[in-house]
Amino acid sequence: MSESVFTYAAPGLKFGRGASDEIGWDLQQLVPATTAGGSARRVLLVTDPGVAATGHPARIADGIRAVGLDVAVFEGTRVEPTDASMEAAIAFARDSGPFDAVVAVGGGSAIDTAKAVDLLLTNPGELMDYVNAPVGAGRPPEQPLLPLVAVPTTTGTGAESTTICVLDVLALKVKTGISHARLRPTLAVVDPGLTMTQPPLVTASCGMDILCHALESYTARWFADFDAKQPGQRVPYCGANPIADMWSEKALSLLAGSFRRAVRDGSDAEAREQMALAATFAGLGFGNAGVHVPHACAYPVAGRVRDYRPAGYPADEPIVPHGMAVVMTAPAAFALLFEASPERHLRAAELLGGPSSGEHVPLGRDTLPSVLRGLMRDVGLPSGLAELGYGAADVGDLVDGALKQQRLLATAPIEVTGEDLATVFAGSLEHW
Amino acid sequence: MSESVFTYAAPGLKFGRGASDEIGWDLQQLVPATTAGGSARRVLLVTDPGVAATGHPARIADGIRAVGLDVAVFEGTRVEPTDASMEAAIAFARDSGPFDAVVAVGGGSAIDTAKAVDLLLTNPGELMDYVNAPVGAGRPPEQPLLPLVAVPTTTGTGAESTTICVLDVLALKVKTGISHARLRPTLAVVDPGLTMTQPPLVTASCGMDILCHALESYTARWFADFDAKQPGQRVPYCGANPIADMWSEKALSLLAGSFRRAVRDGSDAEAREQMALAATFAGLGFGNAGVHVPHACAYPVAGRVRDYRPAGYPADEPIVPHGMAVVMTAPAAFALLFEASPERHLRAAELLGGPSSGEHVPLGRDTLPSVLRGLMRDVGLPSGLAELGYGAADVGDLVDGALKQQRLLATAPIEVTGEDLATVFAGSLEHW
Repeated sequence: MSESVFTYAAPGLKFGRGASDEIGWDLQQLVPATTAGGSARRVLLVTDPGVAATGHPARIADGIRAVGLDVAVFEGTRVEPTDASMEAAIAFARDSGPFDAVVAVGGGSAIDTAKAVDLLLTNPGELMDYVNAPVGAGRPPEQPLLPLVAVPTTTGTGAESTTICVLDVLALKVKTGISHARLRPTLAVVDPGLTMTQPPLVTASCGMDILCHALESYTARWFADFDAKQPGQRVPYCGANPIADMWSEKALSLLAGSFRRAVRDGSDAEAREQMALAATFAGLGFGNAGVHVPHACAYPVAGRVRDYRPAGYPADEPIVPHGMAVVMTAPAAFALLFEASPERHLRAAELLGGPSSGEHVPLGRDTLPSVLRGLMRDVGLPSGLAELGYGAADVGDLVDGALKQQRLLATAPIEVTGEDLATVFAGSLEHW
Repeated sequence: MSESVFTYAAPGLKFGRGASDEIGWDLQQLVPATTAGGSARRVLLVTDPGVAATGHPARIADGIRAVGLDVAVFEGTRVEPTDASMEAAIAFARDSGPFDAVVAVGGGSAIDTAKAVDLLLTNPGELMDYVNAPVGAGRPPEQPLLPLVAVPTTTGTGAESTTICVLDVLALKVKTGISHARLRPTLAVVDPGLTMTQPPLVTASCGMDILCHALESYTARWFADFDAKQPGQRVPYCGANPIADMWSEKALSLLAGSFRRAVRDGSDAEAREQMALAATFAGLGFGNAGVHVPHACAYPVAGRVRDYRPAGYPADEPIVPHGMAVVMTAPAAFALLFEASPERHLRAAELLGGPSSGEHVPLGRDTLPSVLRGLMRDVGLPSGLAELGYGAADVGDLVDGALKQQRLLATAPIEVTGEDLATVFAGSLEHW
């Protein structure tokens, strides 16, 4: 019997310039001002050093103190967090707690770190108990988490809307995550004013994450094409559905009008606002439908990095930023998946504005990949996996890494084999 | 200074055939199975006699008991509830409590009654303390409510998504409400299978409520055209905004394809599913943007009813069903408001499928009203306020009643005067 039910959930949202000035008030609605004993409630604010340097976290902390709440600030989030960096954050929180609420200010790294901290402040055990099996024990959190207010400063991850938390497990050289409905933030405060300081390559990489969230959830397996589930088997990612489709389509239209502009001129407030809206919309879509092949491939692309050091990111360690890792295999992945829903692939290409002017691409398998390559080139992304340091000899390892992401591959519209993934990686070494 | 922030919130949603079979499981996620003392958790199920007769509430109650929760059923909801009927429900709940969660199965009447009951089970005082001023004391609830699972059996009110609860105050012959973020249900379970038993005039009237939710929120004052608010002044209805627009547009498209079909053949499962989706989408839109002139006018149209008794509704008392009351003034109201946003009015008419074939209506002020009149006639609604028993001599009283709804009129895109409302009511006596 096939499935007949889909689910949808979202955090509360406050969107607009100045929204981050009101977080003290919002927290007052989520926690009473004092404990029964009369002492002030305490908030943990999680951020990273780069974001802390913009001054926004300190300003937000002051706004929270102004309503009478205590705030402890943790600035040690690692960009692209690891098990070690998350454990350090958890140790800080345990030492300086107890807390009544958590606020994350930053990109997906800070928000995901805050989710892990919140989980381990409220549930027993250690981080690896909750990490997806087989890497971790895949234990579901049994207790509700503290209220989490997520304040994104990049326009990309949608982490403020989703139930997932992504991390590198250093000993295994593998990127994996924790996924559970209890991890979804309580409130997303999206203030486009906070996103103006993203350097161009950060805007470009994060924007590609938005793009792939929207495209992957739009082309995911239709919810009713899965076998019928028992209620306890329902996962936050239920496949493409009428609600996720709506968010994805709108996110693609918003990107068409703002992505190139926001990269070209970071001070273009209107483009920044549209990108922030696109990121939120795509997060609300994929956070319920799911992502598949490009995101599965991104795990080993990022996890096996050798010495790639992108401009605008911390220079101390090599990283492939998440959105960059995701989009690298997107053109080849969408070529692979075209037959599963040609009309959706063509509609997505159209919503993105179609092929660049001057290009004559016949409508078909290469339409969407061609639109993607044009956009990647225009916003200054690397030309393919080769530029990130991978070669034909790495394809086998990359395939093995992607095959580990069965939770994501299950959302693909077709059965994806190792051979399919080898074609995708081999076709992603050089895009131009 | 003008406003720069909008807000958005929604209940969790489970949508699809069979969704109502899983409510026991859903409740287990919202409340632990037993108290600290080991006794079973207790659920109050609120419904009305007509819905109870379909057997769905009893089946849902059995499903809840099957997971080990106790259920008490209150079947005494009045269709179009009054202060007296809500107070009876509250008295029942207080006598047979305590409860750990509330489930509402029915139309807007049952869901709104459940909101009032939940409010008075968790907060001190009496119903009129919380009713909007000046009719009641307009006191905001200070305590969080019990988890409320809303299970709509009509396709219309969107009450499963909203923060409002509407009632007639009998002594004052006035329809008013309670509006607060804490009243929003925790989870909406929308099972189109439960909506198949709506009689044609119920489908028609509720469908008009969907239509007006979508049209009014789509044409409401833009959120950024209000004065800047302090955080505590933000209300659930923040005016038209990019998210509410998206829901409204999609709801209008869904109605265009399913409304006439669902009225013509109530067993058309696809049309019923599309109507259920349209109702949910419109609820998610207007539940954040707001409604204005037709809804404000509906209060006195319903509240001052003399002896209108529509087919398919309980025959013991005269009522004007809510959706019917709302749409009666919609053609004249949208003619009045056309200049505020001509492009939105024309776009809405287009999304609804445009004027009926054969009609030649020039694009302009009468386009949307003409589409509305065609739809009203096709689904068998009364021809105007005159058929409901009102005449030119009633216009003054109706205007006075509508002017009392300042909370709604504030969401209109223009300053609406008593004279404007007199034009609207006078233009709504006979539509054909």
